[in-house]
Amino acid sequence: MHSDPLAPILVIWVIILVSAKLGGELFERLGQPSVLGELMAGVILGNIILLNPDWTFFEPLRIEAPTEGWANFIDLLARLGVILLLFEVGLESTVAEMREVGKSSLLVAATGVIAPFVLGFGISMAFIREIPAGLVDRLPADFNLINIHIFIGAALCATSVGITARVFKDLGKLQTKEAKIILGAAVIDDVLGLIILAAVVGMVGAAMTGQEFSFTSIAKITFIALGSLTASIVLGTLLAPRIIRFLWKLHTQGVAVITALIFCFMLSWLADEAGLAAIVGSFAAGLILEEVYFKGFKDEVTLHQLIRPISTIFVPIFFVLMGIRVRIENFANIEILGLTLSVTLAAIIGKQVCGLVIGGQEIDRLSIGVGMIPRGEVGLIFAGIGQGIGIFDASLFSAMVIMVIITTLITPPVLKLTLSRWEKKTSCAQDK
Amino acid sequence: MHSDPLAPILVIWVIILVSAKLGGELFERLGQPSVLGELMAGVILGNIILLNPDWTFFEPLRIEAPTEGWANFIDLLARLGVILLLFEVGLESTVAEMREVGKSSLLVAATGVIAPFVLGFGISMAFIREIPAGLVDRLPADFNLINIHIFIGAALCATSVGITARVFKDLGKLQTKEAKIILGAAVIDDVLGLIILAAVVGMVGAAMTGQEFSFTSIAKITFIALGSLTASIVLGTLLAPRIIRFLWKLHTQGVAVITALIFCFMLSWLADEAGLAAIVGSFAAGLILEEVYFKGFKDEVTLHQLIRPISTIFVPIFFVLMGIRVRIENFANIEILGLTLSVTLAAIIGKQVCGLVIGGQEIDRLSIGVGMIPRGEVGLIFAGIGQGIGIFDASLFSAMVIMVIITTLITPPVLKLTLSRWEKKTSCAQDK
Repeated sequence: MHSDPLAPILVIWVIILVSAKLGGELFERLGQPSVLGELMAGVILGNIILLNPDWTFFEPLRIEAPTEGWANFIDLLARLGVILLLFEVGLESTVAEMREVGKSSLLVAATGVIAPFVLGFGISMAFIREIPAGLVDRLPADFNLINIHIFIGAALCATSVGITARVFKDLGKLQTKEAKIILGAAVIDDVLGLIILAAVVGMVGAAMTGQEFSFTSIAKITFIALGSLTASIVLGTLLAPRIIRFLWKLHTQGVAVITALIFCFMLSWLADEAGLAAIVGSFAAGLILEEVYFKGFKDEVTLHQLIRPISTIFVPIFFVLMGIRVRIENFANIEILGLTLSVTLAAIIGKQVCGLVIGGQEIDRLSIGVGMIPRGEVGLIFAGIGQGIGIFDASLFSAMVIMVIITTLITPPVLKLTLSRWEKKTSCAQDK
Repeated sequence: MHSDPLAPILVIWVIILVSAKLGGELFERLGQPSVLGELMAGVILGNIILLNPDWTFFEPLRIEAPTEGWANFIDLLARLGVILLLFEVGLESTVAEMREVGKSSLLVAATGVIAPFVLGFGISMAFIREIPAGLVDRLPADFNLINIHIFIGAALCATSVGITARVFKDLGKLQTKEAKIILGAAVIDDVLGLIILAAVVGMVGAAMTGQEFSFTSIAKITFIALGSLTASIVLGTLLAPRIIRFLWKLHTQGVAVITALIFCFMLSWLADEAGLAAIVGSFAAGLILEEVYFKGFKDEVTLHQLIRPISTIFVPIFFVLMGIRVRIENFANIEILGLTLSVTLAAIIGKQVCGLVIGGQEIDRLSIGVGMIPRGEVGLIFAGIGQGIGIFDASLFSAMVIMVIITTLITPPVLKLTLSRWEKKTSCAQDK
């Protein structure tokens, strides 16, 4: 008589959680970060259809951003998952700690944008010497190919911090200086990415339509993004302890966890409104909140213990879904193999420069470079916009998607490797 | 560049949580269960539009079961909330404890179905002496009014356990015998409600279309519902400790909370498939799982501490949404005032018989009767089906809705009253 619309979603949620835990367990026993297992479980769930075209069960989830039905609900739960992950990661650091690594983060972020851009631009110049086949009908014959080179370069600038944050978390290394530098760089990168996207879309759009390119709008976007980020952190740091101390007086149950999540949700929303990724906001919320503010609530557990069960059931959805959206058939497109591989290499090598620019002896430069590799959803957003405005044909788009997949999948094992190499090295140095 | 579709939903979630906590805090300070505050906060959010027709913000949520947009997502989160609430409530009891009160529960459930049915039938006979105005065109002139009387009687049989469970939980009285009897009765009531609905719809449908009424289909529905409920509880009790002990061996994080929720989700789904309410399944899952099974996981907190943060952020959505869906304008329909008030009285008095049938001295009969009063969503389902098959016109439907609203809203304060009266009485008896 009831027929709850939630019921079928619960089953899919269970399937995702079970595969995430099976994959995570397997890869952890192989000495790998469990996030790699969750990604791989997703790749299997999403591509099992290749074995038998009738197994269309996960088909709705393979769409990048489903807008209806249960796939939409799962997609939203996954977005909640990554917001909670970055909130939890943020909780492990303080604003002061981030300010300490601020300069290094800025350097890393800036290098991580410039180097891949230059490399990507160069590779595009080498490979693309005429208007791509799929765009001949859509672009004017005198179209300046430089616009395509710029867009490919720009698509390589992004950093998707979710994967790296999870690897550091899986390995219990969020407290290291390297983790903090990368996290700071990722936040700055999101601001830079926003500016680059606005600039590139503006320039290319102007080139394609013959309209004038507006610097003012880009300045405005930059101002809003930087302004709201700074304002949230400054105001949040000032107000959070006062607000929370006032809430200690409440009698009703569960105020601690609700307060924490309200901070997280509101800053996520604000970041989104400012054009940034919602996870930048939830990370900032995590930085602002300190365990000590929550000592006055009547809960007998810590803030971490309150958030962990919630993140435990949502975070894996994000990574399994990321795996489900990997389309193995993309790799079958061999006519663009040269370009694809070169772009991927550029994406990887470009970020390795990040580590080299940091001064000081005691820093794991290699791991910083590796931690910046994953492009994740940000790279896909660029590729999607490139396709949308008609500057990427299907082949170019496919090359970008493969670049994103490879950079995302190689990071967990390689980062694990470089981190343990560094650990061994430093512990030997201490032994001497 | 991102524009996360989750961002606007986070704001609404925050509004709901803040109003829930404000309402809960206020009513708790007034000595009332906080669930009443959450309901009232919802009533205000949902009816603020009456003050100014431009404040349409919560309009999408006022729909009973929205199927798209953010309202759909919030609706699904609310459904998750009530599933988690009943799971948590189930965790406070064991299968053995429920078996102990089984006979009393059965008695209470059966009386709670028969008495309101008889009263409702009688009142309908007294008030409805001709085909209702809104149905004259749709029903044959020789339509037997007894079908309407039956449907009104049937709509009064339901028990919606969410409110009562929350009140007992708010007051820390889930361990009392009265709570267990009511919870057991609510589960049995859901099975009975399913059978009654099938029977009534079958009979009335047969009367309206002239087709024959099929007893076999009702027997089948009963068999499936009872069979899967019994099978889940018996198999679950046998298998759960074995499965969970096996899972202790896993290395990966968060297995405890995921295991608990998988049990909860799967039994909810199964109950839904069997035609029962999903919350019957999650309650059963809670009964089956025991804290002791979870001692072997590496988490440093108990199962309750793992589930509580999750339920804390979802459960209030359910009650606030229930309040939002109360339409105050329904009360303006005075032409059916007599019928409405009588039906509501019948709904209340009918359930008071429940307490009287239980033997033994040491039992709070009044609180059991009061705890069975709320009709909640189950009453609305009956009313909706009555309207759907064309046996309720708008006035009759409205009368049923008001009955549901009143029974739902009066339960928290009255139950609080009767429970504290009983507490005083028994503590005085002990003093003597």
